[in-house]
Amino acid sequence: MEYKGRAQEDERLVYGKNPVAELLKSGSGVDTVFLADTLPPAVAGYYMALAKEAGAVAKQVRAAKLRSICGVDSHQGVAAFAASVEYATLDDLLQRAADQQHAPFLVLADGVEDPHNLGAIIRSALLCGADGVVIPKRGGAAITPTVMKASAGAAARLPVARVANIGETVRRLKEQNVFVYCADMDGVPLYKNNLTGPIALVMGSEGSGVSALVKKLCDGVISLPMAARGTGVDSFNVSVAAGIILYEIQHQRQAD
Amino acid sequence: MEYKGRAQEDERLVYGKNPVAELLKSGSGVDTVFLADTLPPAVAGYYMALAKEAGAVAKQVRAAKLRSICGVDSHQGVAAFAASVEYATLDDLLQRAADQQHAPFLVLADGVEDPHNLGAIIRSALLCGADGVVIPKRGGAAITPTVMKASAGAAARLPVARVANIGETVRRLKEQNVFVYCADMDGVPLYKNNLTGPIALVMGSEGSGVSALVKKLCDGVISLPMAARGTGVDSFNVSVAAGIILYEIQHQRQAD
Repeated sequence: MEYKGRAQEDERLVYGKNPVAELLKSGSGVDTVFLADTLPPAVAGYYMALAKEAGAVAKQVRAAKLRSICGVDSHQGVAAFAASVEYATLDDLLQRAADQQHAPFLVLADGVEDPHNLGAIIRSALLCGADGVVIPKRGGAAITPTVMKASAGAAARLPVARVANIGETVRRLKEQNVFVYCADMDGVPLYKNNLTGPIALVMGSEGSGVSALVKKLCDGVISLPMAARGTGVDSFNVSVAAGIILYEIQHQRQAD
Repeated sequence: MEYKGRAQEDERLVYGKNPVAELLKSGSGVDTVFLADTLPPAVAGYYMALAKEAGAVAKQVRAAKLRSICGVDSHQGVAAFAASVEYATLDDLLQRAADQQHAPFLVLADGVEDPHNLGAIIRSALLCGADGVVIPKRGGAAITPTVMKASAGAAARLPVARVANIGETVRRLKEQNVFVYCADMDGVPLYKNNLTGPIALVMGSEGSGVSALVKKLCDGVISLPMAARGTGVDSFNVSVAAGIILYEIQHQRQAD
């Protein structure tokens, strides 16, 4: 794992016990929390638990290294880099579609945990003409520096909204006459869906897919039939599956 | 970065100066080389150079940690985990298609460097019904434990051939009447290609795409037109692009 002595333009360095604890509790995008190996175990354990909750990795480093990261001695044994991201609201995303005079096209990541996958999904969403991506405040990767990099910068160009509850977002979108699909195994084969018109696509987490509650709220379920069965591998990588479906949505919208 | 005290079933631990040097020179799949921080800088530098050449990461660890990884004191300051992978040959892949009485369908990864991307490509290749994946002996990720994991196990199920020269492989495939496409920006839009019949798809590296020499040898170039232009992001993640094209190949082959 690499880290730099100075924060990059799109991230900021936070250090000290209270500031880092507040940062982690705020749910801001943090990849890694650095803990000096001189911290008492109970204190280190507290930050490890906070880091885990925030989806960040806790990394023990020597105190000298922490000083060189922070450039000061007053780090109190704790530091983290946070992404400087301004999140949009769901209304911003819908307004963007209205401004561009096309039917809304949104992507909801329902607990995508791997920052490389979330980054690749945002990149595909941008390229396929989506109006924005929605992620949950808890239970999934936030826009961290790793996500930003994996998105090839798309996460800085396409609005990303963070919501308290993906299910509630699905309900609100349906009220706005947006047709909400999720991707899962027992749905309607991709090419048999009419994907024109106001649309939102929900992608689930790597391990367990779309949550049962959210799936029940959706208007339709899209599945990706595969040529090879019984191989023990039964699904695409989530960012690949998203790419295949988003590309087909783009295709149908352009032919519209 | 995580590592374990014992090798997993699908990987083996190698330690000691000569064994690790031989391992790295052999081009076997190594993710990480562990170097004790007590190694003289010149020796550490030698292994760092070997690791770089082999596409592996060199990581300095304390001598005590290296002892706990190896379980012995005779590690000489150097250790690595190698994937236990049996590579196939190009002929094996073509024979597999003949055995299954269908037209050959191969994926060539021309220098894909990120193990997550290579793993996701192999996973998609398996699911879309490809007969195998071809990777180069140099200039790209080998089948490392990380690739294996990112492929969800597909790399242990789908034959992977390693070849000295991707260009030579393209020539051999063309002699066998396989139509070889590569993915690049200035090609024929995806849906305008006839992708039935004996086919191979070449995907290039993350940074620079398909090499000019290989591209010149290909029968056709496939491009993925995008809805959003001028955003500063001009291509999909390579594993997403591969997934979109492979899924369309599968679609056309099934309709065949």
